[in-house]
Amino acid sequence: MSFPPVIARLSTQDADFDSRLDALLSWEGVSDQEIAVRVADIIAAIRERGDAALIEYTARFDRLTVTRADELVIEAARLEAAFVSLPEAQRAALQHAATRVRSYHEHQKPSSWQYEEADGTLLGQKVTPIDRVGIYVPGGKAAYPSSVLMNAIPAHVAGVSEIIMVVPTPDGVVNELVLAAAHLAGVDRVFTVGGAQAVAALAYGTESVPRVDKIVGPGNIYVATAKRAVFGQVGIDMIAGPSEILVVSDGGTDPDWLAMDLFSQAEHDEDAQAILVAWDSAHIDAVEAAIERQLPTMEREGIIRESLSRRGALVLCESREQAVELINRIAPEHLELSVEAPQEMAQSVRHAGAIFMGRYTAEVLGDYCAGPNHVLPTSGTARFSSPLGVYDFQKRSSLIQCSPEGADTLGRTASVLARGESLTAHARSAENRLKRD
Amino acid sequence: MSFPPVIARLSTQDADFDSRLDALLSWEGVSDQEIAVRVADIIAAIRERGDAALIEYTARFDRLTVTRADELVIEAARLEAAFVSLPEAQRAALQHAATRVRSYHEHQKPSSWQYEEADGTLLGQKVTPIDRVGIYVPGGKAAYPSSVLMNAIPAHVAGVSEIIMVVPTPDGVVNELVLAAAHLAGVDRVFTVGGAQAVAALAYGTESVPRVDKIVGPGNIYVATAKRAVFGQVGIDMIAGPSEILVVSDGGTDPDWLAMDLFSQAEHDEDAQAILVAWDSAHIDAVEAAIERQLPTMEREGIIRESLSRRGALVLCESREQAVELINRIAPEHLELSVEAPQEMAQSVRHAGAIFMGRYTAEVLGDYCAGPNHVLPTSGTARFSSPLGVYDFQKRSSLIQCSPEGADTLGRTASVLARGESLTAHARSAENRLKRD
Repeated sequence: MSFPPVIARLSTQDADFDSRLDALLSWEGVSDQEIAVRVADIIAAIRERGDAALIEYTARFDRLTVTRADELVIEAARLEAAFVSLPEAQRAALQHAATRVRSYHEHQKPSSWQYEEADGTLLGQKVTPIDRVGIYVPGGKAAYPSSVLMNAIPAHVAGVSEIIMVVPTPDGVVNELVLAAAHLAGVDRVFTVGGAQAVAALAYGTESVPRVDKIVGPGNIYVATAKRAVFGQVGIDMIAGPSEILVVSDGGTDPDWLAMDLFSQAEHDEDAQAILVAWDSAHIDAVEAAIERQLPTMEREGIIRESLSRRGALVLCESREQAVELINRIAPEHLELSVEAPQEMAQSVRHAGAIFMGRYTAEVLGDYCAGPNHVLPTSGTARFSSPLGVYDFQKRSSLIQCSPEGADTLGRTASVLARGESLTAHARSAENRLKRD
Repeated sequence: MSFPPVIARLSTQDADFDSRLDALLSWEGVSDQEIAVRVADIIAAIRERGDAALIEYTARFDRLTVTRADELVIEAARLEAAFVSLPEAQRAALQHAATRVRSYHEHQKPSSWQYEEADGTLLGQKVTPIDRVGIYVPGGKAAYPSSVLMNAIPAHVAGVSEIIMVVPTPDGVVNELVLAAAHLAGVDRVFTVGGAQAVAALAYGTESVPRVDKIVGPGNIYVATAKRAVFGQVGIDMIAGPSEILVVSDGGTDPDWLAMDLFSQAEHDEDAQAILVAWDSAHIDAVEAAIERQLPTMEREGIIRESLSRRGALVLCESREQAVELINRIAPEHLELSVEAPQEMAQSVRHAGAIFMGRYTAEVLGDYCAGPNHVLPTSGTARFSSPLGVYDFQKRSSLIQCSPEGADTLGRTASVLARGESLTAHARSAENRLKRD
């Protein structure tokens, strides 16, 4: 009796390799017209009726019934109490993680700059924090305290004046770890609301929820659809796809470790993706055997099995160089370089959300406490986007101050170009500042 | 006989000031369901039939009929020829502008960084350019060579390997200034296509148009709708609203200059917005008189009149401090501080796309050649977004390399937090790297 393998094996020498890899990687965010219409209705209701609509939706979707909006608020003192009441080990771990995440993000702070030209004209760029930010935190089983740290700490480091968090509490059940993380991360106030109604409240404000300037954080399809809909009214972060990892091994790492690294990604959900690339066929055999052996011992065996069989792969390639080509083609969210001389290899990597270098650097350390952000570009979007960072909570303003001489020199050029574009008010505005001869 | 005033006058002391200002500022991007459906059809056709569909749409919408897709290509040599053939004054002006824009943007280049911790663990961030970028340039009368410079030069400075430009050429008419600007800005290749079909071709690629990683540049409602639709497949820049200026005057600038500065914004189109704020009532009278006097001399009088009457305002406030409050409430795209000690005032400005300081710094200098980008956040989005810059054409990757000691320390914390989130494969992946006692 033989079982089908848990995970597919591919080789770059297969005739159909390109199409099979493309099929594995392909992911299109669901865009459901029916959901878009329901979300639009919810947003319209919140804009029109504010708190009253927010209370109604919260009763309907989260079975949390209140009569006044202020019953939906959790103040800072309650967040602190949650932190103080945690078991010692959890409190210390959360504190350790928060300290490290804060320290790493301090390195991301950009500076304002300016320079003066020979004629006295001054040019520069001023960096300022966003005033008020909203952090969406999912409720229920996907409520991750680490996500609270990763979303709120960069905002706090950026100098955001007020950080508002929303988290649904279905049936009134709150997650103490989430509240404790909010305290550590510098969250000012929490509203126990969720879904599209929470996003709408943050984007437009209600009598009790203040309007924010940017909304970040993960959520289900309703939350993602609402974020897309309010984009422009407020800033938003990327709409994330399923989490993924690409592990590259040179054959020198314990196959049991590598199997567990793949599992750690696959256990997120059935759509998560775990791919291993190596150029040693016997090593791939060993990893496959480690997968088969360890899988039955996993608490989330069902999810892992489904994820590995649907979207996972063990890929045999020809060389270290070909592995790099695959990395840049895939542009993975998480890249684990479990190889000798990983820094050298990382230099050839053009696209990846986060690069974990060396046999000791399990990707999961980055999920919690290494320091860098765990909110990363998924589904190949590392081709054009970056980890969430301090820069996402700041913005820039250009600075220009012309000396009379500068206004003359620049004005002559501007006048020619403006007239070339038939914009004569532009030309005359510049010409007004020319030196009279 | 009396005429209605060209532009509204408001005072912060009016009982209805807040609501009148809100009404003036209010702008919602059109989101037309019918257009969304047509755009979705166009995108689907390009994805399915590639060049064949692109040729059909170009014939239908731009009345440009070709039989082969390579007839839609303009190569680098042709761009250079356009530049060489320009009249001397225009060539020199364009070159001057390009040099200054390039020089300013060189200052924006961020650096990769890393640091080592006491236990040998290494953390950092690597900055890499986007591989391939698409620049959308509108055709017809809104074809601005300055826009080509402002969109393509930051990409070139960022180190983007390939810059593809698309520009519709209705009836086959090309704009030589636009081609010349493309040459100067480092554009590699131009396709004479436009509309949603051009955006779709850039996002998904066709037999002849290469798939890009990010699309930037202004366009009409079809282009904007298509950009929104392909967001996620590729990166996009902000969807821009109408252009606006807020001029703050302390009464010391020539009213004729200020009137022309307002006109220069209003002449863009009927939705453009020009607002003046001052705390000297007699000065506002003088600016209003200058507007009435100069308006009949303007080539675009009709557009300016319509724009000023619909969306313009002369606002009397009580003090310099109150003017700053208004600035931060409005978060203007362009802010002209036509005041003494403008740098001091700029320090209190939290939200603005670009700040033009002093009486000699006409905003139009920034449109063409001061150096900073003229692609700026509109409609109050300066609350959370920035001018287009080099940073829009680069992305970051986090770097993490744990020493065996670091993997032990971090692994213990990660294990506690992972078990708190019920993610046991995460915990075990970290625990594999703990030191054995």
